[in-house]
Amino acid sequence: MTADARIERVDVHDVRFPTSLHRHGSDAMNPDPDYSAAYVVLRTDDPDLPDGHGFAFTIGRGNEVCCAALRTLAPYLVGADVAATVADLGELARRLTHDSQLRWLGPEKGVMHMAAGAIINAAWDLAAKLAGVPLWRLLSDLSPERLVELVDWRYLDDALSPGEATDLLRAAEPGRAARVATAAAHGYPAYATTPGWLGYDDATVTRLAAQAVRDGFRLVKLKVGANIEDDVRRVRAARAAVGPDVRIAVDANQRWGVREAVAWMEALAPYRPWWIEEPTSPDDVLGHAAVRRAVAPVRVATGEHVANRVMFKQLLQAEAVDVVQIDAARVAGVNENLAVLLLAAKYGVPVCPHAGGVGLCEMVQHLAFFDFVAVSGTLEDRVVEYVDHLHEHFLDPAVVRGGRYLAPQLPGFSTEMHAQSLVDYRYPDGPVWTRLSSEKGVPDGSDRSGGAGAY
Amino acid sequence: MTADARIERVDVHDVRFPTSLHRHGSDAMNPDPDYSAAYVVLRTDDPDLPDGHGFAFTIGRGNEVCCAALRTLAPYLVGADVAATVADLGELARRLTHDSQLRWLGPEKGVMHMAAGAIINAAWDLAAKLAGVPLWRLLSDLSPERLVELVDWRYLDDALSPGEATDLLRAAEPGRAARVATAAAHGYPAYATTPGWLGYDDATVTRLAAQAVRDGFRLVKLKVGANIEDDVRRVRAARAAVGPDVRIAVDANQRWGVREAVAWMEALAPYRPWWIEEPTSPDDVLGHAAVRRAVAPVRVATGEHVANRVMFKQLLQAEAVDVVQIDAARVAGVNENLAVLLLAAKYGVPVCPHAGGVGLCEMVQHLAFFDFVAVSGTLEDRVVEYVDHLHEHFLDPAVVRGGRYLAPQLPGFSTEMHAQSLVDYRYPDGPVWTRLSSEKGVPDGSDRSGGAGAY
Repeated sequence: MTADARIERVDVHDVRFPTSLHRHGSDAMNPDPDYSAAYVVLRTDDPDLPDGHGFAFTIGRGNEVCCAALRTLAPYLVGADVAATVADLGELARRLTHDSQLRWLGPEKGVMHMAAGAIINAAWDLAAKLAGVPLWRLLSDLSPERLVELVDWRYLDDALSPGEATDLLRAAEPGRAARVATAAAHGYPAYATTPGWLGYDDATVTRLAAQAVRDGFRLVKLKVGANIEDDVRRVRAARAAVGPDVRIAVDANQRWGVREAVAWMEALAPYRPWWIEEPTSPDDVLGHAAVRRAVAPVRVATGEHVANRVMFKQLLQAEAVDVVQIDAARVAGVNENLAVLLLAAKYGVPVCPHAGGVGLCEMVQHLAFFDFVAVSGTLEDRVVEYVDHLHEHFLDPAVVRGGRYLAPQLPGFSTEMHAQSLVDYRYPDGPVWTRLSSEKGVPDGSDRSGGAGAY
Repeated sequence: MTADARIERVDVHDVRFPTSLHRHGSDAMNPDPDYSAAYVVLRTDDPDLPDGHGFAFTIGRGNEVCCAALRTLAPYLVGADVAATVADLGELARRLTHDSQLRWLGPEKGVMHMAAGAIINAAWDLAAKLAGVPLWRLLSDLSPERLVELVDWRYLDDALSPGEATDLLRAAEPGRAARVATAAAHGYPAYATTPGWLGYDDATVTRLAAQAVRDGFRLVKLKVGANIEDDVRRVRAARAAVGPDVRIAVDANQRWGVREAVAWMEALAPYRPWWIEEPTSPDDVLGHAAVRRAVAPVRVATGEHVANRVMFKQLLQAEAVDVVQIDAARVAGVNENLAVLLLAAKYGVPVCPHAGGVGLCEMVQHLAFFDFVAVSGTLEDRVVEYVDHLHEHFLDPAVVRGGRYLAPQLPGFSTEMHAQSLVDYRYPDGPVWTRLSSEKGVPDGSDRSGGAGAY
């Protein structure tokens, strides 16, 4: 690149897919999601250089608020030196999350934090493209010391020190090359959520669950939490469809209180759920710990809505979870997820990333491969969520074969959408939404009638 | 009112005050706040009816993101029947916080939650104005059953049931009338933060602390956390200035990790701090519990940045705090603060509200008076923060005399700003900001140079 290349513009796109039309993605708390991206592009001023792409994932309404947050953060990037920026992404992450005035709006949670994560991830996409390698390889080639510098250590001193983290990464260094080869050859285990959306009827659930097993998945997940009789019937049918050896996870999407969660899981216990995901509020560390004590040996999983490393730290300290479910686009990007991977490794809890939505599979696979190569060093009880929606919009879509993610090969973070998708699905005035809003009875994103049904 | 009056419009105002010019409000995490309001008005279509006013408090940059969130929530109010809305504000609060698509952006935290709180509080202002009474009186006249209906009970079942809450409120019913009279006659104890901003030099701190004592305050608060030697010197000087019997609270504004907090408080212990406020991340329940065990008998206080009732619940369950500091404008308004008051009463922990900023004193005094009348029933170790900034912008400003808040008398929630203030301080194009941005070297809200200095 030219020595003085700069980030010239930060483009923000409000992109929404009308997934609620077919109840894809429906669960006990989210009956009608329209998978959306508050999408950001870091445009360089050198035509020979790539751009950095990232996004926050939302489910429709409010995507415009995330876009506003991206525009508010843009001045941190506009005019920045490209080489200096990608050379110190720890510094960038800290600047974006520690702007004192913007921090007041969280701190480190909600819309502003998701927007910071989108920009940090876009910068990582740019860094990996400039390096000519997929992100998981870029991270896997960093020294323990460089990795530790990427983390914001504030608020972690009672759980993990930079020195401990360095030791932990050093201990995993000897096997890195072999695990890169293993990852490239055999991929990373995936699990299938496609069969289990709450809006699907029983026949669809059993048909898709059986198909998932034929496709090589060893874990399928079902949404639960709206009606206990329905859930017992659905989970029993799924168990019959997949046989005794395939794992079935269930996911309540935060629907329950603690006592309610325990009672509900007693009813589902005969069908041997592998984990219960999001039994209650993602903020409720003590609640998760109480549920976990009560429902063992069923595991407790959470993380897709956990706001930041401080909350993950406590879930681990309190022995509240058996499974840590990082999300690529909720916390402050790669950097904060690195902190969570290190915490999980210290406490010996497997990380099984959340994915689905739009583009979450594309991103989080990189973090899983990196975790295997350089942090945890193992695939045991590790599995990444897979949902077969909306991958066609990405230049480098996630690929799952035989129940395993194939290791990404192209440079970058797999975050880049086709330019035409950004145009077609632009909200509210792209051609897809213009057409839908002219058709009677089709959701246009402003309809609130079904939106607040979960309380 | 006319039987069919409706909310015709939801007006949103981005209002900012250039408080950073004089380092008012400076602390270890927030060196240069510009106190701001993402201000919302629920306009009725009947000219004989009042409007409802509310706002989220921010410290400058990002206020526009809160305004975007207010506009996103506005469709829930536009066209709503006024009488039906104010008759069931529990329902309104649940609809605003449980919109499934918007909930994804929290859940129940950050920008969307603050915006929901602003609108809920505006609706309470409207309700109290329609009833012709100050909000604290409106709440104090509701039956235990009606109060319990206002709370969103989701996620509380392991700590407090609606039945327990009803019992608790019934137990406080007999003394209500006497406490209304006491409150009206004697007010509510206040404490003074004005002396202790981190940007003030030692002479200013001691002069203002001594003045606060002469003005009748029995507790003053000092900001700490940037430099330990400076803090020891400042707290020692303040102790000398106020004498042995006036309480001195210290406030680290989330600057420390757990171990750091404990070490720092050891250094300050000789000057007998009454409480340490925000020693670490507001998300760190277990961290606060650890700090509390280590620094006793110094009390631990937090709450102004605690996102929601689930976090307050855990702070109480974990015995992590001695003082619960509700904020009127961070959680989902009056309704969620009512949940927190009930939780604090159950666990026997005093509530000492956070105030200051712009308009926080005006709002939170109503909740304190209500807590005294109908929930806790006591003033023991209760005290509401007071800062003497920006009250002149309100139609019904908070008044403190002899170290005590006087009970508000006018109908409403004291949230309404003068129309001229909304015009003068409109950002970025109101006359005050237009003038400031034309002067060299004056912050215009886009300068990031000092913003991220705290990490």
